[in-house]
Formats: sequence, C-alpha cells, structure tokens
Amino acid sequence: MNLLQIYAKLKSDLDAIEAKLASSVTSDHALLSDASTHLLKAGGKRIRPVVVLLAGKFGDYRLDVLEKVAVPLELIHMASLVHDDVIDNAETRRGQLTVKSKWDNRIAMYTGDYIYGKALALATELPNPQIHQILSHAMVQMCIGEMEQIRDFFNTDQSVRNYLLRIRRKTALLIAISCQLGAIAAGADRKTANCLYRYGYNMGMAFQIRDDLLDLLGTEKQIGKPPGSDIKQGNMTLPVLLALKEPGHSEELLAEIKKIHESNGAGETKRALNIIRKSAGIHIADEMATRYINKAIEALSSLPSIPAKKNLTDIAHFVGKRNY
Amino acid sequence: MNLLQIYAKLKSDLDAIEAKLASSVTSDHALLSDASTHLLKAGGKRIRPVVVLLAGKFGDYRLDVLEKVAVPLELIHMASLVHDDVIDNAETRRGQLTVKSKWDNRIAMYTGDYIYGKALALATELPNPQIHQILSHAMVQMCIGEMEQIRDFFNTDQSVRNYLLRIRRKTALLIAISCQLGAIAAGADRKTANCLYRYGYNMGMAFQIRDDLLDLLGTEKQIGKPPGSDIKQGNMTLPVLLALKEPGHSEELLAEIKKIHESNGAGETKRALNIIRKSAGIHIADEMATRYINKAIEALSSLPSIPAKKNLTDIAHFVGKRNY
Repeated sequence: MNLLQIYAKLKSDLDAIEAKLASSVTSDHALLSDASTHLLKAGGKRIRPVVVLLAGKFGDYRLDVLEKVAVPLELIHMASLVHDDVIDNAETRRGQLTVKSKWDNRIAMYTGDYIYGKALALATELPNPQIHQILSHAMVQMCIGEMEQIRDFFNTDQSVRNYLLRIRRKTALLIAISCQLGAIAAGADRKTANCLYRYGYNMGMAFQIRDDLLDLLGTEKQIGKPPGSDIKQGNMTLPVLLALKEPGHSEELLAEIKKIHESNGAGETKRALNIIRKSAGIHIADEMATRYINKAIEALSSLPSIPAKKNLTDIAHFVGKRNY
Repeated sequence: MNLLQIYAKLKSDLDAIEAKLASSVTSDHALLSDASTHLLKAGGKRIRPVVVLLAGKFGDYRLDVLEKVAVPLELIHMASLVHDDVIDNAETRRGQLTVKSKWDNRIAMYTGDYIYGKALALATELPNPQIHQILSHAMVQMCIGEMEQIRDFFNTDQSVRNYLLRIRRKTALLIAISCQLGAIAAGADRKTANCLYRYGYNMGMAFQIRDDLLDLLGTEKQIGKPPGSDIKQGNMTLPVLLALKEPGHSEELLAEIKKIHESNGAGETKRALNIIRKSAGIHIADEMATRYINKAIEALSSLPSIPAKKNLTDIAHFVGKRNY
C-alpha cells in the first residue's frame, strides 16, 4: 500500500482527529483561536496521529481514547513549530522591528505556550498518569534538543554522535512516543509498546536524516524553500559533518562555512553545497538512514501480522525512499 | 505572627523545596541549567510554595509529596516570568537587535518551555491525574491571561470586570490552585480543598490589586523600578480604569494616556500619575482589595483551628496591608 492508500484507509478517523485538533485550540480568546487555527489550516502530514492510530490497532482500538493522545502529540509538534517561528521572525525582520512584528512575536510565543498547555490538558483527560509523564518528559527533551541546535550552530567541530543525539531529541523522540502512547492508550502490553517505540524512534531518525539530505540535494520546488537553508542558518547536518572529515573536502568546506557564518545569513551557499554534494558524506548519510529504516522494520518483527504492521512497514519504506 | 516568623517556622521545609527547585532545572545542557539557575538565584517570595505547605497541614503533611506540587507551581510561575522577559527584551532593545540579544531571546524562550516541561514532568511523579489536570488547565488559563493583557494594552474603554477577569487568570488562579493542590496532595477532603482554593483565589486577587496600586503610588526605591511602569507599557490597571470613569478626571487622563501611547514608550507619565493619585480610583481600588482579603479570610472559617489557619490569615492580612 502506498502512503495515500494508508491515509485513505484511516480517513474517517483522521477526519475526527482533525476536528478535535480544531476544537481543542478554540478558546474564548479570539486572537489565540485565530493564530492556532491558522496553523492547523496550514496542514501537514499528521504523521504522529497516523502512527498513533496504527499503533492502537495492536490493542483495544478505541478512537475516543486514541484521539486523546494523537491530538496532544500533534499539538506539541505544532507548538514547537510556533516557537521556532518566533526565532525565525526575529531573524527575517532583523533591524526593522515594527510594532506589528513585535506583536506577532508575542502572539507566537503565547500561542505556543497555549498549545503546549492545551495538549497536556487534553491528555490529562485520560486517567493514566504514565501517559502524562511520557508526554511531559518528551517536552523537556525537545526543548533541550532545540537548545542544543542553537548551541551547535556553525560548530564544525561537533561529532556525528552529537548530531544523532540532537535529532533524537528534536525529532525521533516525539515519533517514538507517538507509537508507544498509541499502544499504551489501547491497553497493549508493555512489550508491544516497547517494540512500537523502537519502530518510531528508528523511523524518526531516518526521517530527519532524509529531511536534512533533502535540504542539501532537493530543488527549491521540491522542498518549498531554497536548498542549503540549514547550512545558512548554521545547522550542521550529518552530510556536512561527514564531508568535513574528508581529507579532500575538509579545508575548502571549512572556509566556505566560515564565510557563510561571517556574512551573518547573507552569504552564498552555492559553493558549500557543491562541495557537500560531491562528497562521500551524502552517500554515507543515505546509508545510515537506510540502516535506521531496517532497524525500524526489524522492531516490528515480533508483533502479530495484522494489517497495521504492514502499514507501518510501508510507511518506513516510504520514509526510506523520499527522493531528491 | 508576622511574615518573617511564618517563613522561619517553615524554614527547613522551604530549604528542601529550594534545593529541589535547583536540582529539578539542572539538565545535561549547560546553557539551560545556567539560565534556569540564574532565575532561581534571583529569589522571590516563594509565596506559592508557602501556601502549598500551609494547605498541606490540613491533611496528611508529607514533604516528599507536597514538594511535588510546590516545586512545579513555583516553576510554572518562573516560566511565565521568563516568557514575559522575552517580550520585554524585544522592547528594550528595539531597533538594535544584536546577535547577542537575539540569542538571549532564543534562550529565554526555550528556557521557559523547558521549565514548563520540567514542572509538569515533576508533578506527574504523583500518581494522581487530577493534579496533572489542574496544573495543565491553569497553564492554559495563564496564557489566555497574558494574551488578554496584550490585547487590552492602552484600551481605555475596558470595563472593571475585564480587568478582574484578566488578573484572575494572570495571578489569582495560580495562587488558588497552589492552596487547592497542597490540600489535594495531602489527601484532605474535597470541601477543605475548595475552601483553600477560595482563600487563595481571593488573596491572589487582592495581591494583584495591591501590586497594581504600588506601581502607581510607590517610590522607585520601594518597587525597584520607576512608578508608572504599568501605564507606560499600556497596562490599564484598576485605579486607572476607575479614574477614567470620574467626570472630573476622565478627559484629562484620557488625553495623557493617548500621549503616552503615541510616544511609543518614551512619554512622560508624571502628569497621568498625578491625575490618578488625586482620583477616587485609588481609594475604591484599595477598598476592593480589602474586600477580597476579607473574603479570603472568610473562606477559611469552616476549617479546623490549626496553626496553619492562623498563618494563612496572617498572610492575607499582610497582603492587605502592603503599604505605599
């Protein structure tokens, strides 16, 4: 089954989650409702709700219970995006902070806080404290991941391990607990929940590595923004760190990154991109993503052969094949 | 007993809470730990932990349980202050956004997120979902309060009711649930928890009204910042709204506030302060605070006459008498 077919199969339940997402961020405060709803309308792949529902199939599948983890997980993801935007706004409009742009930042910050709060408030309707604990711990780890990303901007000395730890916190953890919480909410046993966690973690790692590759190799049309945005921002992704270790590219790439850093966001990334694209880093990163995908699929091996298992496997294959 | 004596009596337990506050925000990320610890060292009255402990005396007083609500409540208060600072930073440094100031804002935002997360993660160690629910709902209401404050900046048309609703969300609610959660964590019965909630709510309302009066009537030495900061920022507090309704002051005050608004923060507040200080608004606001204090003390009437009841009464009297 391809991805569209999986979405089609889950459509009525995903529609219910979409409605719950919308209603959950509606407050008696118009501005907060508008800002949150605006975000929701921007859509997204809703990958977290999808894996919650599929994980729920390994237990007692009840939509009214599963949506109380699926919606909070998507909200936490959204809140983290809103707070990323606060930072991005400050950058884009640097030097010309109008009253309007100031107000946007305030609104974005409090909208993020509000969505985080709503996410946790909705999850606490389920009487299982373990669920609340897993969610709040993930929120903490995600913040640490965001801070690490800031700390590591333009740090060309960091290890591959450092990168992997960072994307684990930033991306893989939330997908992992989406799978885990879907299983827990459906009352599946601990072993099943753990297998699904491992699936989600490995799939999430591959997902982020592929996303980072796409930023280096994709066209502006494919990725919706100019390629090289990460390197421009100072985000040293896996292929870059690998290329920096290659004797043939190291010095030249280091000099290019230094130029981009010193230009404060205005610099040209073309030359750096060319070096990276020629490097073995691309191929090695690609292989690492494939290894994570294989581990994700392997994590499912002991689970019963229900259709959801096939769907999760197909999703992993899709993530593994995102082309550029 | 005066306030210092009450603190002295609780000293060893408050010291334990202080230590737990410090350890709870220590992460493997140095920057986050530093920023959070910096905040902690700035101190504060720790009014929320104090009322948690006193409320806990109405049930089975166990410090190891009570600290799991006291610390999260103080952390939520701190996180909201950190996010207020993000906004303040943006204002103060307007027009000269250096890389350093940008980084500060990022760090402040993620530090706030991190502290919110840590607060909820610590509370989820208590296996009572009701506690998690009350905390996350309060977080949502506080965000709405902050947004309402932004929405209502320089709105001279707003009602007294609007002001009261806003400070309820912004301040009173967190103090109310501190009392309530202290009781619930100690296993006190529902009626006791409700009485303590009402005490905290009314005391918190009086606390904020007095704080707003202090900003109008205090000296720079007393309040640590120039008087009139609220009006400069556009925060229309109770005495201002009342003065705006007085035929003798209305027009003149409206013109002054308009000038302050148009000056974009650079304007002189002296004349506006003089008008407000002469108005009956001061006296009426003062009386309203006293009424809230009386209601707070009344809320305790049906509770057993243990020393903690006297302490809470004394705290209410202290809040009622904050002088200026």
